[in-house]
Amino acid sequence: MPARQTIRTIALDMLQLIHYSLCPISRSIRLAIGECGLVVELEEERPWAWRRDFLMINPAGTLPVLMRPHGFVLSGYYAISEYLDETHGKVNGEAPPSQSLFPGSALERAEIRRLVDWFHLKVDQEATRYFLDERVYQRFIDMGRSTPDTDIIRAGRSNLRYHLSYMAHLLERREWIAGDAISFADLAAAGQLSVLDYLGEVPWDEFRKVKNWYQSIKIRDSFRPLLTDRLPGLPPPPIYASVEF
Amino acid sequence: MPARQTIRTIALDMLQLIHYSLCPISRSIRLAIGECGLVVELEEERPWAWRRDFLMINPAGTLPVLMRPHGFVLSGYYAISEYLDETHGKVNGEAPPSQSLFPGSALERAEIRRLVDWFHLKVDQEATRYFLDERVYQRFIDMGRSTPDTDIIRAGRSNLRYHLSYMAHLLERREWIAGDAISFADLAAAGQLSVLDYLGEVPWDEFRKVKNWYQSIKIRDSFRPLLTDRLPGLPPPPIYASVEF
Repeated sequence: MPARQTIRTIALDMLQLIHYSLCPISRSIRLAIGECGLVVELEEERPWAWRRDFLMINPAGTLPVLMRPHGFVLSGYYAISEYLDETHGKVNGEAPPSQSLFPGSALERAEIRRLVDWFHLKVDQEATRYFLDERVYQRFIDMGRSTPDTDIIRAGRSNLRYHLSYMAHLLERREWIAGDAISFADLAAAGQLSVLDYLGEVPWDEFRKVKNWYQSIKIRDSFRPLLTDRLPGLPPPPIYASVEF
Repeated sequence: MPARQTIRTIALDMLQLIHYSLCPISRSIRLAIGECGLVVELEEERPWAWRRDFLMINPAGTLPVLMRPHGFVLSGYYAISEYLDETHGKVNGEAPPSQSLFPGSALERAEIRRLVDWFHLKVDQEATRYFLDERVYQRFIDMGRSTPDTDIIRAGRSNLRYHLSYMAHLLERREWIAGDAISFADLAAAGQLSVLDYLGEVPWDEFRKVKNWYQSIKIRDSFRPLLTDRLPGLPPPPIYASVEF
């Protein structure tokens, strides 16, 4: 009996992340959790389903949600990333070997936050979302047609090139996206680019600086779980899982 | 000469906020600056103009931008609000009589941030934006018609009622939007509602709890500058500037 109870206590203490495997924002939080040295149980939620039970947990309907059963519910990347930073990943009471997600002075932290918005609001809505709608979600919901709209795909590719140029511009003078240390801005950028890469949409060879930066992220331990994600019927190109690409 | 120089030094030290008077997000930062006891010089930017000079300052093209000439540039409400909180408003080196914009424990701060997103992403895009596009921006840009689209206005009003119900639900068990202390979540909500109120779109008498909460915000010193804003050719209803409404 005591052994059983111990097991049950551990299970209740387990962190859960409600996510979708190809959601770029969920991915950035999975990376942040990995960087904080935490372990979570993943629970998949289809973002297009708007399930009543999920909306009871997060009425905004957004992913991801970090929760501890009978504990707390944190909704959205903004609340979750800042919470992980403030608690230094000590979400379960113990201190893992973590580093800050927003390192530096108040002004350096402001630059990180500006760029988190850039990736999770602008790149998400001007590029990633186009490809997810047309090539992934359309397989599951009735959008009145069964093939991607070529005009939307073309617009997404054009916008993506603009954003890759902006990243290259930033990386001309910095080692990481927001400064000289890795931060949540890099994880937000990697969340977006990893989904675009899964869909084979990133013209890596035209953007060498961005490719070098992505290679530096891809070899981190926190990235490994993302490389094994597979969507049934929609496999990634071979380079997706490879650090040599 | 020394007197002149002194004046010039003060001017260079002056904080500037690039904003638009009916931009709900700019308004929330004007309130935050007021709550921090800071003084700023306001510079108006028309959000629909996409001026090249403004995009050089903030390539995302979003409002507001807080800057000190020859000092720093902070773009967007996320970076600005967190920066004001981290520096406790000590943006000019002196400590004003400020309070935290994100008061409480890490979990309480997470709830504030969830609700900031609620107002500045959801309410903004599902309600306020509809009215600004149809009733304000349309006067300045060619949208192919000269009168508001009644379907869009009707949808905005329906969405707004949903959001006012959610606010009433929150205020059933809390004094302020995110907890028992005023926070940036209240300022974000007030930024959105004050624009809707300027346009006469808030059915206050159907939502007494929300009205009481708004009255508590409206009487604060930080709110006073917003009550004198006037858009040429589009005056607000008389109740806009009155605390008794």
